[in-house]
Order: sequence, then structure tokens, then C-alpha cells
Amino acid sequence: MIETLNKAFCTLPGVGSKTAQRFVYHLLERNRDGGFELAKALVDAMEHVQHCNSCRTLSEKTLCNICANDVRDDTQLCVVETPADIHAIEQSGVYRGKYFVLSGYLSPIDGIGASELGLDELEQKLVERHIKEIILATNATVEGEVTAHYISNMAKQFEVQITRIAHGIPIGGELEYADINTIAHALSGRKNYT
Amino acid sequence: MIETLNKAFCTLPGVGSKTAQRFVYHLLERNRDGGFELAKALVDAMEHVQHCNSCRTLSEKTLCNICANDVRDDTQLCVVETPADIHAIEQSGVYRGKYFVLSGYLSPIDGIGASELGLDELEQKLVERHIKEIILATNATVEGEVTAHYISNMAKQFEVQITRIAHGIPIGGELEYADINTIAHALSGRKNYT
Repeated sequence: MIETLNKAFCTLPGVGSKTAQRFVYHLLERNRDGGFELAKALVDAMEHVQHCNSCRTLSEKTLCNICANDVRDDTQLCVVETPADIHAIEQSGVYRGKYFVLSGYLSPIDGIGASELGLDELEQKLVERHIKEIILATNATVEGEVTAHYISNMAKQFEVQITRIAHGIPIGGELEYADINTIAHALSGRKNYT
Repeated sequence: MIETLNKAFCTLPGVGSKTAQRFVYHLLERNRDGGFELAKALVDAMEHVQHCNSCRTLSEKTLCNICANDVRDDTQLCVVETPADIHAIEQSGVYRGKYFVLSGYLSPIDGIGASELGLDELEQKLVERHIKEIILATNATVEGEVTAHYISNMAKQFEVQITRIAHGIPIGGELEYADINTIAHALSGRKNYT
């Protein structure tokens, strides 16, 4: 039983057997109620959390809070890779538009093509809605760039502004410690200083 | 629901909201079956795992595998702070005696005294059984040392050899990077080189 629980914890990302053991002993020795609560929360979430019908993020309702919010700008659509990215952008508090979640990136070798990422749905949105700007916020990785490029190609047939989030030196970051790719991006993406 | 699960994960030691979020999204997006299995394993363990009647470690049975194993030396008793310590010692494969788990260390300020650590039971064992050696394997912290000292005082009234595990430079460790306390212990605990 202890071993089974240990193995179950090991399936979580970044959790090895030492960490799993720490979780197991902590729950068994100090917080059994917490263990039951975690089990209940897990079952609830696994059973009831689905994807938002509109933006494909994880949501308990058919339409997530952001999609259901009429105050948010319907003409801006920010395309991200994962629901966690929405969370990160929302925390910055500067974006008032809507989202679209790809749930990954294009990776033909893994069998992840346009339809797996819901790009048909995205195209449908561009046809139906009056979207003025599509913001490509996929990650700054090779896969993220390829995915962004693919979407921008697809979106070109519509009258829509296609933008990509800026890449450069992080705020608070020091040039000295930035990697060469970041510096190259920061230089080529330089703006007029006002 | 997502938020509840996130908070439930945050009760685990060393898990903050970012890590919890990673767990949640991983389970929801990629491994719902794993989520259900984890929930089941949690409930099973929280309900059925108890303490061994003899050594007080966590066990599914009234007597743990080690205590129930007649091949193991009944005359040696290794006193450890937690069940995880038993696991660590067992992995080294050099100890063939039995164990006693304190489930913590003496900490009068937190209301943890001799009875909470089961020192009465330990004394009872010394009275009843033919224990020849008691190995103090509490941690090399102030609390662990105090606890070891207390137990050694208690055990003195019995005809039993009282030993403490060695402290010094870890194998593979470099003197240059060892902290001063470890070096001091390593020097004062030096042995004749054969």
C-alpha cells in the first residue's frame, strides 16, 4: 500500500521516489485528513474538469470564466500552448482579450498535427468572429516558433493583424547572464527609445 | 475544482503553487487515469496503514515485515527518528538487526516528551528482550543528539551496549566542501588506520 502510493506519486512530473517517499510519510504521519482531501479533490477534478468549448482551456463549465466574460475584448485572440500559459498571462494583468489554447505544439513526428491542436476551430473563429488581432504567444522554443509560423500562415488569408509577443532580456535580468539567443533576439527586436 | 486540487497539492511538503499547478495540468491534460489511481492509492493508504505494534514504523500489518522476520538479529536494536530512516538504512544492506521508530525527537517546547516518542515501550523492550546492543541512529542535529543522549541515559540501567552511528565526511565527499561541524566530528571521531 505504501509502495503503491509511492509509485502513484512518482507519475507526477518532477517527482522521484525520494520526493514521493517524503509525501507518503508526511501524509501518513502528520496529515491523514490532508490525504483524504487530496484524494477527493483528485477524483472531483478528474471527473468534472473538461475543456472549454470555446477556447479549449481546462474548465469545470462548458464555457470558461474568461470566454463567458462579456467585458473582455472579443476582437483580440491570444494563442497559447497550455492552460498554464493563460494563468501566467492573467497574473500579469495587462491583457483584456480572449484566448485560444492549442494544448501543445505542432510535432508531426509525434502525430500532433493541425487538427490535434484545434487549428480548424481556430480558423473557424477567424471566419465567424470579428477578430482584429491574433497574438501568437507560443513558447520561444523551436516547436513554439514553428507552430506560430504555421498559424500566422493560416491567418494571413483573413483580414487580421498577426502579432508575436516580444522576446528579449527578462525584466530584472542581467545582460551578462543572458544566453546568446536571447541577446540576439533582444538586439534584432530593438525599438526606438522614447 | 482546479483551485481546490491545487490547494490540496500545496499541503505536501516542498510543493508550492507553481509545482501544484504543474501536477494539476499534467494529470488533467495527460494522465487522468493516473489521477484516479493516485486518489485510490491515497485512500487505501490513509485508511489501512497503521503503526507496527513492535517497532512503531508505518505498516499495513500489525507487525511489520522486519519485526516479523525471524532471521533478523533480535539482540540488536537500531533507534531511528522516522520510518524513512529505516528505509535508508535498509537500502545500505549492512544492518541485520531490528528497529525502533521514535516518530520524531524530544522537543518539550512542542509537547513532545518521552511518552510521545514511545520511550516507555523502548524501555519495556530492554526489560523483556535480550537486547545486547542499542544503536542510536537519530539525526546529527541538536534535537537528534539530545534525544540520543536521553535514550542512552535511560538504557544505562540495563546491561546493554549503547552505540551511536559514526559522523564524519560522507563517502565521496570532499574535505574542502564539508562544513566545520562535520570536520570537527570527523577529526574527533578518528580511528586507527589499519
